[in-house]
Amino acid sequence: MVNVVVVYHSGYGHTKNQAEAVFEGVSSDADVRASCIAINHEGNISDSDWQALDNANAIIFGSPTYMGMASWQFKKFADDTSKRWFSLAWKDKIAAGFTNSASMNGDKHSTLHYMITLAMQHGMLWTGTAMMPSNQKASVRDDINYLGSFAGLMAQSPADAGTDESPTKGDIDTAKLFGQRISEVTKQWCS
Amino acid sequence: MVNVVVVYHSGYGHTKNQAEAVFEGVSSDADVRASCIAINHEGNISDSDWQALDNANAIIFGSPTYMGMASWQFKKFADDTSKRWFSLAWKDKIAAGFTNSASMNGDKHSTLHYMITLAMQHGMLWTGTAMMPSNQKASVRDDINYLGSFAGLMAQSPADAGTDESPTKGDIDTAKLFGQRISEVTKQWCS
Amino acid sequence: MVNVVVVYHSGYGHTKNQAEAVFEGVSSDADVRASCIAINHEGNISDSDWQALDNANAIIFGSPTYMGMASWQFKKFADDTSKRWFSLAWKDKIAAGFTNSASMNGDKHSTLHYMITLAMQHGMLWTGTAMMPSNQKASVRDDINYLGSFAGLMAQSPADAGTDESPTKGDIDTAKLFGQRISEVTKQWCS
Amino acid sequence: MVNVVVVYHSGYGHTKNQAEAVFEGVSSDADVRASCIAINHEGNISDSDWQALDNANAIIFGSPTYMGMASWQFKKFADDTSKRWFSLAWKDKIAAGFTNSASMNGDKHSTLHYMITLAMQHGMLWTGTAMMPSNQKASVRDDINYLGSFAGLMAQSPADAGTDESPTKGDIDTAKLFGQRISEVTKQWCS
Repeated sequence: MVNVVVVYHSGYGHTKNQAEAVFEGVSSDADVRASCIAINHEGNISDSDWQALDNANAIIFGSPTYMGMASWQFKKFADDTSKRWFSLAWKDKIAAGFTNSASMNGDKHSTLHYMITLAMQHGMLWTGTAMMPSNQKASVRDDINYLGSFAGLMAQSPADAGTDESPTKGDIDTAKLFGQRISEVTKQWCS
Repeated sequence: MVNVVVVYHSGYGHTKNQAEAVFEGVSSDADVRASCIAINHEGNISDSDWQALDNANAIIFGSPTYMGMASWQFKKFADDTSKRWFSLAWKDKIAAGFTNSASMNGDKHSTLHYMITLAMQHGMLWTGTAMMPSNQKASVRDDINYLGSFAGLMAQSPADAGTDESPTKGDIDTAKLFGQRISEVTKQWCS
Repeated sequence: MVNVVVVYHSGYGHTKNQAEAVFEGVSSDADVRASCIAINHEGNISDSDWQALDNANAIIFGSPTYMGMASWQFKKFADDTSKRWFSLAWKDKIAAGFTNSASMNGDKHSTLHYMITLAMQHGMLWTGTAMMPSNQKASVRDDINYLGSFAGLMAQSPADAGTDESPTKGDIDTAKLFGQRISEVTKQWCS
Repeated sequence: MVNVVVVYHSGYGHTKNQAEAVFEGVSSDADVRASCIAINHEGNISDSDWQALDNANAIIFGSPTYMGMASWQFKKFADDTSKRWFSLAWKDKIAAGFTNSASMNGDKHSTLHYMITLAMQHGMLWTGTAMMPSNQKASVRDDINYLGSFAGLMAQSPADAGTDESPTKGDIDTAKLFGQRISEVTKQWCS
């Protein structure tokens, strides 16, 4: 059994929906023990959450993109990982990331590249979507990887969409496949 | 009168369509002398093109995004600007950039941030779209800034779309407004 | 008279030293009214600080680089600027940025490019250092732009250096010149 | 036995020195078959080079940083990898990268993040330096990871330094350790 932990912040619930879909994808693998940690509105997680992260074989970071970057609550969490960094305690864990925002692009790439930067400081191995984009004339919004992202997982939730309707089916299905991907990579790495 | 020069590479013609829309927007301002330079398939421009760039008050860079970055032909042009860099000959020019690719995201952000990096080495001033995104539930593909880009202009042309049909009307209209924006900024800077 | 505001977060005081050098450079121009705002340890500034930012012709962002990005306190400030973003209230202001960290590189580039991303969302114009690097065999640590940064200002303070000794003279002198540069650009833009 | 291939472009020879040190580090592992491919001055490699890359378990990308990004020759190589991208032929290979430039920073971070973007399009797994930086007051230029890089390997060669004297000993030693790191990661991944 390998441990995969999803740790995310969600401001209004859309990123929580995305996180749960990633978690479902991770969990669909019988050889993986999955858990999910929500960073609270003050940017904190509990001591047992930190312990779960320390014990993880893979960590999947998640955050909305606000003003062109991960939320301050996610950044507070990232700053708090400095204690692990000093001893490279997270070295050789698998890392991946996801983000949601209201626009098609909306600088989501910026958030994902920050998560990579964070993972690289920790000496982790980064894995992206490994998915082809859906970018033909006949492509539709609910296709897998319609947003065309590679460095990590993206979802888009319109600014006026409720959490009961967004992210849409295609982005949620993409999130599940992404979770499965991370499980597979983690198992190969730990075998 | 101020001089604004669009310098771009286009592999198949979609980015050329985008460039011409930007050029049309720039040219719509009676106080602006606009010109348009195409980097050829070997990554070269002519001596008179270099002179036009040296005389410009603003330079707008354009390239498709191939494999997550500006095309090699654009990069060859960028490398060739090193002669200007040694004397900071382009210091205090206005700079902006645009890119087209097949996917909604497709790492276009990466290309735009490289163009910023290039402009910063030259001591230029960077201006983006200064446009709000269209990201409501009722938003449609032909809205202005549907792609939700800020650092520069984006267009998306499906992988199997001909140059007679792509970029679509919304991206072309956005390109025209972007060109107007650069003209306005350049006039204010040079006044 | 034009208004230039430096707004920064400093965790231990090194970035404060850098901010004060930038402020000194800005202030050395008799035609510029300069002010300096410190983001507190909770990531907040006062109502009058927000008013000063709203009235600024130029805003210079500053933050340490922690775990590969601006501090969470700076990010909280950035998230709080979303109220201005909705109406593009900061459009056409001049923007620039600086950062300090313990390593020569230490992902400072990541922080500066985030500040650019933030400025682009606001429709601001970004200006970098416009300085050549000092990168010859005979170059020494106290040279101007020894760190070789273009997108914004960098300083490096060793992890065990006190705030009475760091950043070093060269980085402080570079910061003063950077402040002067922003004053000149702002005056030209507003003339 | 696992295969690790270093593929790099070098303009004047400094990056070649760095590449050879990485190669030496990779080769020091008896369980690794290492090879080294030089992209030529037209941006090309041979058919057998492409075959070696296709057969690799890990690919280490290398390029100087010119005008804020990998050289155009490296980008031409990257564009030519699109044939592999269409079938995700390089999916699940280990990837890493290195770069050299004249300045301490000099936008080397930009080149490394582009190499990550390229690797993510291919569905590869990225590994960085996993090294702590040398950033104390007592640190000296020849320390391991004095440049403080995490996303990949950096070296700095003064603009007027010959290829017989640069990169310096510390950067070369860091490159050897980096090569060893990639060998270790590749073996664990393929075991």
